[in-house]
Amino acid sequence: MNFDYSEKTLDLLEKLKAFMDEHVYPNEHEYHDLVANNPNIWQTPSMMEALKTKAKAAGLWNLFLPKEYLPLGAGLSNLEYAPLCEEMGKVLFSGEIFNCSAPDTGNMEVLSKYGSEAQKQEWLMPLLEGKIRSGFAMTEPEVASSDATNIETSIEKDGDEYVINGRKWYTSGAMNTNCKILIVMGKTDPRAARHEQQSQILVPLDTKGVNVVRAMSAMGYLDEPIGHAEVVFDNVRVPASNLILGEGRGFEIAQGRLGPGRIHHCMRLIGCAQRALDMACERVDQRVAFGQPLAKQQSVRESIAKMYCKIEQARLLTLKAADHMDKYGNKVAKNIIAAIKIVAPKMACEVIDEAIQLHGAAGTSQDTILSATLAYARTIRLADGPDQVHMMQLGRNLIQAKAS
Amino acid sequence: MNFDYSEKTLDLLEKLKAFMDEHVYPNEHEYHDLVANNPNIWQTPSMMEALKTKAKAAGLWNLFLPKEYLPLGAGLSNLEYAPLCEEMGKVLFSGEIFNCSAPDTGNMEVLSKYGSEAQKQEWLMPLLEGKIRSGFAMTEPEVASSDATNIETSIEKDGDEYVINGRKWYTSGAMNTNCKILIVMGKTDPRAARHEQQSQILVPLDTKGVNVVRAMSAMGYLDEPIGHAEVVFDNVRVPASNLILGEGRGFEIAQGRLGPGRIHHCMRLIGCAQRALDMACERVDQRVAFGQPLAKQQSVRESIAKMYCKIEQARLLTLKAADHMDKYGNKVAKNIIAAIKIVAPKMACEVIDEAIQLHGAAGTSQDTILSATLAYARTIRLADGPDQVHMMQLGRNLIQAKAS
Amino acid sequence: MNFDYSEKTLDLLEKLKAFMDEHVYPNEHEYHDLVANNPNIWQTPSMMEALKTKAKAAGLWNLFLPKEYLPLGAGLSNLEYAPLCEEMGKVLFSGEIFNCSAPDTGNMEVLSKYGSEAQKQEWLMPLLEGKIRSGFAMTEPEVASSDATNIETSIEKDGDEYVINGRKWYTSGAMNTNCKILIVMGKTDPRAARHEQQSQILVPLDTKGVNVVRAMSAMGYLDEPIGHAEVVFDNVRVPASNLILGEGRGFEIAQGRLGPGRIHHCMRLIGCAQRALDMACERVDQRVAFGQPLAKQQSVRESIAKMYCKIEQARLLTLKAADHMDKYGNKVAKNIIAAIKIVAPKMACEVIDEAIQLHGAAGTSQDTILSATLAYARTIRLADGPDQVHMMQLGRNLIQAKAS
Amino acid sequence: MNFDYSEKTLDLLEKLKAFMDEHVYPNEHEYHDLVANNPNIWQTPSMMEALKTKAKAAGLWNLFLPKEYLPLGAGLSNLEYAPLCEEMGKVLFSGEIFNCSAPDTGNMEVLSKYGSEAQKQEWLMPLLEGKIRSGFAMTEPEVASSDATNIETSIEKDGDEYVINGRKWYTSGAMNTNCKILIVMGKTDPRAARHEQQSQILVPLDTKGVNVVRAMSAMGYLDEPIGHAEVVFDNVRVPASNLILGEGRGFEIAQGRLGPGRIHHCMRLIGCAQRALDMACERVDQRVAFGQPLAKQQSVRESIAKMYCKIEQARLLTLKAADHMDKYGNKVAKNIIAAIKIVAPKMACEVIDEAIQLHGAAGTSQDTILSATLAYARTIRLADGPDQVHMMQLGRNLIQAKAS
Repeated sequence: MNFDYSEKTLDLLEKLKAFMDEHVYPNEHEYHDLVANNPNIWQTPSMMEALKTKAKAAGLWNLFLPKEYLPLGAGLSNLEYAPLCEEMGKVLFSGEIFNCSAPDTGNMEVLSKYGSEAQKQEWLMPLLEGKIRSGFAMTEPEVASSDATNIETSIEKDGDEYVINGRKWYTSGAMNTNCKILIVMGKTDPRAARHEQQSQILVPLDTKGVNVVRAMSAMGYLDEPIGHAEVVFDNVRVPASNLILGEGRGFEIAQGRLGPGRIHHCMRLIGCAQRALDMACERVDQRVAFGQPLAKQQSVRESIAKMYCKIEQARLLTLKAADHMDKYGNKVAKNIIAAIKIVAPKMACEVIDEAIQLHGAAGTSQDTILSATLAYARTIRLADGPDQVHMMQLGRNLIQAKAS
Repeated sequence: MNFDYSEKTLDLLEKLKAFMDEHVYPNEHEYHDLVANNPNIWQTPSMMEALKTKAKAAGLWNLFLPKEYLPLGAGLSNLEYAPLCEEMGKVLFSGEIFNCSAPDTGNMEVLSKYGSEAQKQEWLMPLLEGKIRSGFAMTEPEVASSDATNIETSIEKDGDEYVINGRKWYTSGAMNTNCKILIVMGKTDPRAARHEQQSQILVPLDTKGVNVVRAMSAMGYLDEPIGHAEVVFDNVRVPASNLILGEGRGFEIAQGRLGPGRIHHCMRLIGCAQRALDMACERVDQRVAFGQPLAKQQSVRESIAKMYCKIEQARLLTLKAADHMDKYGNKVAKNIIAAIKIVAPKMACEVIDEAIQLHGAAGTSQDTILSATLAYARTIRLADGPDQVHMMQLGRNLIQAKAS
Repeated sequence: MNFDYSEKTLDLLEKLKAFMDEHVYPNEHEYHDLVANNPNIWQTPSMMEALKTKAKAAGLWNLFLPKEYLPLGAGLSNLEYAPLCEEMGKVLFSGEIFNCSAPDTGNMEVLSKYGSEAQKQEWLMPLLEGKIRSGFAMTEPEVASSDATNIETSIEKDGDEYVINGRKWYTSGAMNTNCKILIVMGKTDPRAARHEQQSQILVPLDTKGVNVVRAMSAMGYLDEPIGHAEVVFDNVRVPASNLILGEGRGFEIAQGRLGPGRIHHCMRLIGCAQRALDMACERVDQRVAFGQPLAKQQSVRESIAKMYCKIEQARLLTLKAADHMDKYGNKVAKNIIAAIKIVAPKMACEVIDEAIQLHGAAGTSQDTILSATLAYARTIRLADGPDQVHMMQLGRNLIQAKAS
Repeated sequence: MNFDYSEKTLDLLEKLKAFMDEHVYPNEHEYHDLVANNPNIWQTPSMMEALKTKAKAAGLWNLFLPKEYLPLGAGLSNLEYAPLCEEMGKVLFSGEIFNCSAPDTGNMEVLSKYGSEAQKQEWLMPLLEGKIRSGFAMTEPEVASSDATNIETSIEKDGDEYVINGRKWYTSGAMNTNCKILIVMGKTDPRAARHEQQSQILVPLDTKGVNVVRAMSAMGYLDEPIGHAEVVFDNVRVPASNLILGEGRGFEIAQGRLGPGRIHHCMRLIGCAQRALDMACERVDQRVAFGQPLAKQQSVRESIAKMYCKIEQARLLTLKAADHMDKYGNKVAKNIIAAIKIVAPKMACEVIDEAIQLHGAAGTSQDTILSATLAYARTIRLADGPDQVHMMQLGRNLIQAKAS
């Protein structure tokens, strides 16, 4: 548990902060304006390409990819990546600039870890280069997907092809015009053992039968230009070689993906919360009501103090989880991963909500990032498993450990 | 404190529920679709006119207007109106069907109570008939409007006209194509005593110099087709007769408006929360995870039980506040009005948020009303004064009463 | 739902408040001193007898006993009794002065409702006259008594006697030297249907084999001179006629007892919370820190305001529960009774805890009643079923009602 | 921020745990029984001397004393001491066994740091050897001592003596028969600058005029045999050489004391909370209700999971605070010290309260340590400054840092 930043992290963090200050914060409003005024809101504004080129040149690229996959990425441990990911979390769209945005990061990890050579060549390489984007089709509208065994989409072998039928929603990324490939979770054998029924398969978005039905809203936000799609798979046929790892190994792949995925969201959310606190501190110092700056009100100071305490605690817990994942692997670290998934999104919701309250009407408006950030934090309390599932598992594990 | 429904209420409530069941719930999705697909999202879909005609015919019209203004409205007391308003709160846009939607209700009350005969003829009558809509321009972006003495918009006498300059935002209603008139709060005399500087004045929306700059977002929602506008008043000139009540009486008018306005929001929010609970009960009974319906999970039952307890308590507090307003007037009832304004929005936020969690992804989507309703509840924690202002006043009053 | 006080209540409340002001508050400290310095802390100080005589003379006696049992008690409905019970709640030991203290009230109700004539003559009469006190032996240390079917004490028929064996604890009242009789819940037939195994039986405390083992502490308080006893029943023999109502009807009796019992606790707790708020208001007005009275701090005002909101809501919910019990009976009112049992103790804990915080060290001391009152409120979150059991039942009922 | 345990800590922790397992846990009940049945409850049971001798022999002595004072203590940094202090926190009275109990630790630090050679010889040496105990007289009943400038006790020079007059309470330690010396905070010059009016002075408990008036209760507990005393100083005369450091330096001394003192309480509280969680895990695994162990209930698992998350976060925050104090000193670390003082006591209250709920009646009884531990945690929310004072300072500092 040495949380001091490594030299690598210190170096990258300095560069990243400088990059954010020079290229991202000054363009934040313009980016949102460009998206909003785009004839096609699902098209990423071209300024993004320019920023990506600059980020690559600055050595700020694929920071998320661990050292097993060097030289494809930066080769950082989870602990080393955490402060960088937090920093990117302060501007939600900035992840893409550094090729560190969900769900691509998870998809790239899956392909790096479990993909065949051919799959890597065709899909991992362009993803790592930031040439295309991707989606992950897991959640289904008809069943409680928090229990992944409920998933109903079928993946049936038919000769040297698989035929996919089902309905997915909240397939993040799939609305974007640059999204070319989906990883789809479904069942290859509904009669197999409970955790061996599922498989994951690559489905190019332009395959016949893949129908992007509509954009799903998440707490009032479409999250354009990336978005969350409802996708119907209607007798979709892909070559058998598109299957990842093998039949019945969908759960195994999901596990491998979820550890890092969960912690990346938590790191980002800490960045969100920290920025909300920073904004609140500035706001209350400027705003005057009833004859004095809000900053002089004891209740305001208490709010600010509580926000700090919450953030700082969640940050340390995230670092500990990252450290344990690095040292002991995702499986051994499962309790602390569950803990951070329970803590960070709720913390971010509370902190950002309080920042909104301190901002008054402006906090609810499009002029600050607060309400969009709150929407993100709120959805993460459900994404990758609702709080309740993680508490169920953590609680059960703790009781067993003590009782045994 | 007799909270039994009066015969009048019982009769209207039965009619109202039947109307909602027959005409509103079945058209809920269509209404939202029509708005979303309207070339001009600020135009109320024409189905609304048909519904309004039916509501008038059913005797469900201007239910909010108290008996002082009979026969213009239904002549109900606050206590009698509460259950009806709660019922309307279950479908946010339904208020307009019965000509009971904010900010028109507040504007109609102000004009009924304080308007000149000419003002009534010109603006109150068409509002009461549901022919036009209106806005209330109070909050300003540049100052903490929670302290109304901060307001900077100027209303200066110039001959037989007033000249208005300033910038308002979150002027609810002003985006709608049917909005014809604004009530604007500003300062006629910045050198007068603290609560006598302000006045309120009628400004037709088509007056030269009234610039609707943009639609403000509220927690991710534009709330089309009604909306919240940013409005710049640039040397806007209106006849002196447009001033309401007299110079320096803006605070007095605001007080008269705020009591009922606050409680109406609270009643609606109780309807929102009740519907969220009803939806959650149905959802958890249907959804299966980990081998059993969610309804069998002890934690789900605890959630449902807590939601019920919160709603029921806030409902009773609202009824008590309504009753005290009826019996003792808004001034004497100020503590209990403050209490309900503190309690109801927060309660609704918590209950709806929990319903979202129990719904999973669907709760965050456009397929349920939950996230839009949460956004409404959240903004009401700021509208008409943030929680903190009401707690400041209530706390101070309680201490003084005890200490004196 | 007419919560206005009846004339009977108004009259009694006026008398009660006058009595409290004249005889109780001025003697509060002395009472506690007498108890503390008594050679036998389980002996009620003799001042109590004088107070009881005065209360009887003032017509403030057996206020809890409903009209079915007139002229034995005051004949008040639950709704009429509520404000009186709240008032008594402000001084925890004051219930006994008016013969309205638990567990005697519950025992007297049980005997009034289900007792044989002989049982009434022998035990109910002296209880109603305040000559003796009684205990209720339900909870057992070895099993989770929240699920009453777990109870293991056996009540076996042997000729014309019953033989009782088992261990009870938190048998409130049984430490007091004036306690003469216990109502004991046990199993007469462990093979009967789940809710027909239990019976309730009268056991005089001086019966051979009844061993009062020790005084149980409740959150640090022994609650002398009444106390909570651990009692071992070692082959205790009582006449068969001591059985109440009949074999297998213990659950039925428990249900009859628990409705009023629960709501009386809630009423008292509202009195506790109200007094804590009143004390806090006075305290913050007097205490100076950092150059101004605490009352000027915005955070203090927010605390006070929140306390008021919580109390007022719980009070109204209690009144509604009382009203429903009066009108529809305890069975129909079960949801609202569950709700108030969930709400009131937790509310009281929160409010009193906040009052302690506002009092500083004094709030934790024996110089204020706050910490003793918090201990009482905290234990009531477990007594008569922990919160969780009531939430389980309420949640299940609500879901069923909605889903069916 | 390297939170890995040092070799020194690892070694001591192993020894400490073994000692606790062998000598403390098995004697826990006996210790409490001995205290309760002692004719004089303020006399430490003699078993303590035996345990202290064993602890000294095991090298587990004066673990709190930092390396500046080697070889008097173990020479551990705050970070190194934290896990040991946490471990001791699991049994509240165990601190004394290792000569690590408040308020002696604080008094020893003060004397080590600021005491004259004579003061050290007379008082520090016997304290370090565990031969006597001591008290710290700071809080006064008449003023809000959270604002230390309010303190009214006077320390007046009279020749070569100081004369002390005033009333203190919650002077922890002063009830114990082994308590020989008090450090008293008072004012030597009420006309000096605000933070230079105060001084600290050594007052032997047997000095004429020192009247221990009574034992104060803390949330229902007298905390015998140590206790919290109310002490009246009635023209108490001590030699001028008893003044510590110099006139007007009382605040400076208080600051030096409070940093470590606060964090020690927090470490102990984490131990308390961890033990409460461990106990709860065991309990819910054994207890059966409604047909299954409590451990199978989803709501129980959620409780357990939340407890873990809270503890783990507070622990990490405490370690960070300890680390910053070690590296940067108490002054630079003030924000994080404030944070941990805000977080840990509240966390412990919540966690222990939840453990009580999961234990049912047993949780409120003397048979578990839970309610006594909750009382300790609750009082620490007030001791060394109430939460509000720390939030005031932390909030202000954060706003200033951001705004400047």
